[in-house]
Amino acid sequence: MKQKIVFLGAGNLATNLSKALFNSGFDILQVYSRTIASAKMLAEQLQATYTNNLKHINKTADIYFIAVKDDAIVDILSAIDRRNKLVVHCSGSTSIEVLADFSNNYGVFYPLQTFSKNRAVVFKSIPIFLEANNAENLNVLQSIAVKLSDVVEEATSEQRLSLHVAAVFACNFVNYLYAVAADILKDNHIDFKHIQPLIEETARKIQLMPPKKAQTGPAVRYDKAIINKHVDFLKDHPDYQQIYELISHAIYRQNC
Amino acid sequence: MKQKIVFLGAGNLATNLSKALFNSGFDILQVYSRTIASAKMLAEQLQATYTNNLKHINKTADIYFIAVKDDAIVDILSAIDRRNKLVVHCSGSTSIEVLADFSNNYGVFYPLQTFSKNRAVVFKSIPIFLEANNAENLNVLQSIAVKLSDVVEEATSEQRLSLHVAAVFACNFVNYLYAVAADILKDNHIDFKHIQPLIEETARKIQLMPPKKAQTGPAVRYDKAIINKHVDFLKDHPDYQQIYELISHAIYRQNC
Repeated sequence: MKQKIVFLGAGNLATNLSKALFNSGFDILQVYSRTIASAKMLAEQLQATYTNNLKHINKTADIYFIAVKDDAIVDILSAIDRRNKLVVHCSGSTSIEVLADFSNNYGVFYPLQTFSKNRAVVFKSIPIFLEANNAENLNVLQSIAVKLSDVVEEATSEQRLSLHVAAVFACNFVNYLYAVAADILKDNHIDFKHIQPLIEETARKIQLMPPKKAQTGPAVRYDKAIINKHVDFLKDHPDYQQIYELISHAIYRQNC
Repeated sequence: MKQKIVFLGAGNLATNLSKALFNSGFDILQVYSRTIASAKMLAEQLQATYTNNLKHINKTADIYFIAVKDDAIVDILSAIDRRNKLVVHCSGSTSIEVLADFSNNYGVFYPLQTFSKNRAVVFKSIPIFLEANNAENLNVLQSIAVKLSDVVEEATSEQRLSLHVAAVFACNFVNYLYAVAADILKDNHIDFKHIQPLIEETARKIQLMPPKKAQTGPAVRYDKAIINKHVDFLKDHPDYQQIYELISHAIYRQNC
């Protein structure tokens, strides 16, 4: 029998994960969010009830998924009493141990992906990293994870933190660099779509060769004349200039 | 009748572009490279002759493509006398005007992509940006470019420079961040392949929404506790720490 689930959180991760669980046949009883409109909007997609009051959290679920900002996890746990239920957080950077004070059964369920509420992702290829306080709870989480994804792995809290840090570089910071490129092109009346084949190829290339080997451009050639020309071109954007110089030096040092 | 071409340069760009031209039926007469082994290796794939001596450049071609490091362009032009031939460079960051002293017919042919010698790319979707000293030469370059790609655009030297700078951010620097992620994961015994779905999704997402809107992660939420935890995690990598802090602040400021 599939477990009954309560979802605490209605943000990007909560939305995507709860919908994936719902679509895999799990019964989502209730959605909690501080913002009642967010709770309602998600709950309606999951045929669930909703609340913005921690005192009204449904007590009959088997598993409580907490997918909120990291520093809100403990606040939520303090407010609900679920000592004998399986309590799971979904955070990359929070240790499993924060759950120990609040339940005898706890674990971590961490899908490594960037989620936006209004963009559906294919869960099958998203790696899910699990940790639990004992083998039995790990089994429960594994049985859920394999219904969502083909890639289910165990990871310690320290490994999960490293995954999150790596993801910040490879996703959040990468996306910021895309935004810088978009801004530069806009200033020069060039459609952002023209750089998309380059962005795609850059992402595809490292499936076949390690990133260090895939490195191209003026920094890895240490083409000082071009680097200076680019820094000068960015003179109206001191923040972009600073990033340009810092990463160019880092690329050069990496390849020395 | 398709033009006869001499290729000056045998690096990543020269290799990919000359092969694309050859495969589209153009006659590549000769390849020049300072390194005779590079010239030979490329020439053999193009059924062309080769040389490492600028005095032996074939005089009968219609077009001379110069695809070398930017600061070598003028050296090469000074050594060959092709005043009445169409002379074309392929650089993002060098103005068309450097060619004016050496020929009456000149232009720029700039495919926006990251090229590695041993990786074939599909040219059809690569935008090619053209510039020429008159309409007739522009026509010639357009007639060549449309045989290689579905996306052929005109761009001024200033616009091309902006494209190159944007490409450094969206490709070279992005690739460096992939390398940082790979390094962090390796230190923590996690297979780099697990982060590839995230990398792909990050690149795909901005085809449908502007990068600013796609931004996720602790910096855009200004989750100071997580940011501090990540900076602390990177304490053995001061260079990664510096990049982490700089880009996190930039993301935060961008969204203020």
